Amino acid sequence: MREYETRVRVRYAETDQMGVVYYANYFVWMELGRTELCRSAGIRYKDMEMGDGIFLAVAEASCRYSCPARYDEEVVIRTRIAEFRTRTVRFEYEMRSGEDGRKLAAGSTLHVFCGEDMRPLRLPEKYWGFFGVG
Amino acid sequence: MREYETRVRVRYAETDQMGVVYYANYFVWMELGRTELCRSAGIRYKDMEMGDGIFLAVAEASCRYSCPARYDEEVVIRTRIAEFRTRTVRFEYEMRSGEDGRKLAAGSTLHVFCGEDMRPLRLPEKYWGFFGVG
Amino acid sequence: MREYETRVRVRYAETDQMGVVYYANYFVWMELGRTELCRSAGIRYKDMEMGDGIFLAVAEASCRYSCPARYDEEVVIRTRIAEFRTRTVRFEYEMRSGEDGRKLAAGSTLHVFCGEDMRPLRLPEKYWGFFGVG
Amino acid sequence: MREYETRVRVRYAETDQMGVVYYANYFVWMELGRTELCRSAGIRYKDMEMGDGIFLAVAEASCRYSCPARYDEEVVIRTRIAEFRTRTVRFEYEMRSGEDGRKLAAGSTLHVFCGEDMRPLRLPEKYWGFFGVG
Repeated sequence: MREYETRVRVRYAETDQMGVVYYANYFVWMELGRTELCRSAGIRYKDMEMGDGIFLAVAEASCRYSCPARYDEEVVIRTRIAEFRTRTVRFEYEMRSGEDGRKLAAGSTLHVFCGEDMRPLRLPEKYWGFFGVG
Repeated sequence: MREYETRVRVRYAETDQMGVVYYANYFVWMELGRTELCRSAGIRYKDMEMGDGIFLAVAEASCRYSCPARYDEEVVIRTRIAEFRTRTVRFEYEMRSGEDGRKLAAGSTLHVFCGEDMRPLRLPEKYWGFFGVG
Repeated sequence: MREYETRVRVRYAETDQMGVVYYANYFVWMELGRTELCRSAGIRYKDMEMGDGIFLAVAEASCRYSCPARYDEEVVIRTRIAEFRTRTVRFEYEMRSGEDGRKLAAGSTLHVFCGEDMRPLRLPEKYWGFFGVG
Repeated sequence: MREYETRVRVRYAETDQMGVVYYANYFVWMELGRTELCRSAGIRYKDMEMGDGIFLAVAEASCRYSCPARYDEEVVIRTRIAEFRTRTVRFEYEMRSGEDGRKLAAGSTLHVFCGEDMRPLRLPEKYWGFFGVG
């Protein structure tokens, strides 16, 4: 299955008054991880949306936090496709510090392929290869 | 000219590691101020977008910060229409603490009326009354 | 166990180009839910942090999305304390539309009580009552 | 005066239902611009905060929007120090598309140097060189 590693630097805007990254922002990083995983496979998610009217609606999202990420720290996001079906896809993510390698968090998102009307659909075959099938 | 006061409570997500509200979030509060000003005048901004395909694209935005807002504090946003033309509208905002009345910030946004293609247009007359004209 | 209902209106800033609320923002609403649950029980989370130096670090967070929330829609967040131990607390959330009652999402967060050094600690007894114990 | 160019790719989270980047997010990009300008000059803003307890509190912020930025687009942020005094510093920013070079926005922020108590102070001389003085 596909796997890809991307890097992001913690923004001031992403911290909160606890002095660490606000917990919802890890889900934004997961989005970056899957966007870059797609790009690495030659697919721009943007083109799936714009060209074919296919959206990846989020059905489930979860995250376990191990160690807080801090402002200006580099975060390495490792994203992989954990499960692909013609109607759904699950991504898994691991986030580590790019500086000392400590594990920050791990998460998962489940997506349903939808049309522009937000109704579930079967992913067209031309995209299957990207998800490691066929 | 129309004027309206709305209240918002500072979210944890809106703070940063300086222990105060991150500066970009005041612009989100301004958006709340103008949404509620519209609603108070019997117009749902949502309906302008959905029904008539009219968008208020932001052309300029500015804010002067007087005193930092803090987590869980209530903020009073006073919004007024400062200038209306058939192609543009300017809102002004004053933000104060709902607890001790101290001035937090003051700002302004200038908007251009646009169609769904994001091209500028002349606001249909039926909306003029809302902006205090006719 | 304690339970509380609070309401929030969807901000424009919370939507994304799919025309619905961006998935990470539901976690911000969960934060509002637990803040207001605390307030309803006579505790300001702010005072726990400021006064006693006790933080609720997030250890796990998850959400299942049923139906997308849309701009300007009112969302009813029902929050309850699902499990309390002296070192951890789990909140559960249900989010429904305030307009047609349809279920939008359900989620859960697990928190670890920490001191200012971000190390886990045992919650002081004076707070137990709030969590429905003693 | 110092000048620096940094690049950022538009996140899905940064768009709104108008299909373009939400206006408050340009101020987050400005923050990235000044952080990277500092880094390019051998100063980590993080170290100023952590080491010397010096904060750059925002006193004013403004932005003029020329053309909307879109999801997945690369944005080039050109940041320069427009004015330095021992108690304040003004940054200016220009944001262009990294793809077709069109101008997206231009902005400015004015900052006051503050101590940990959030009171204004005179910037220690050791930092002056960074701002192009001495």
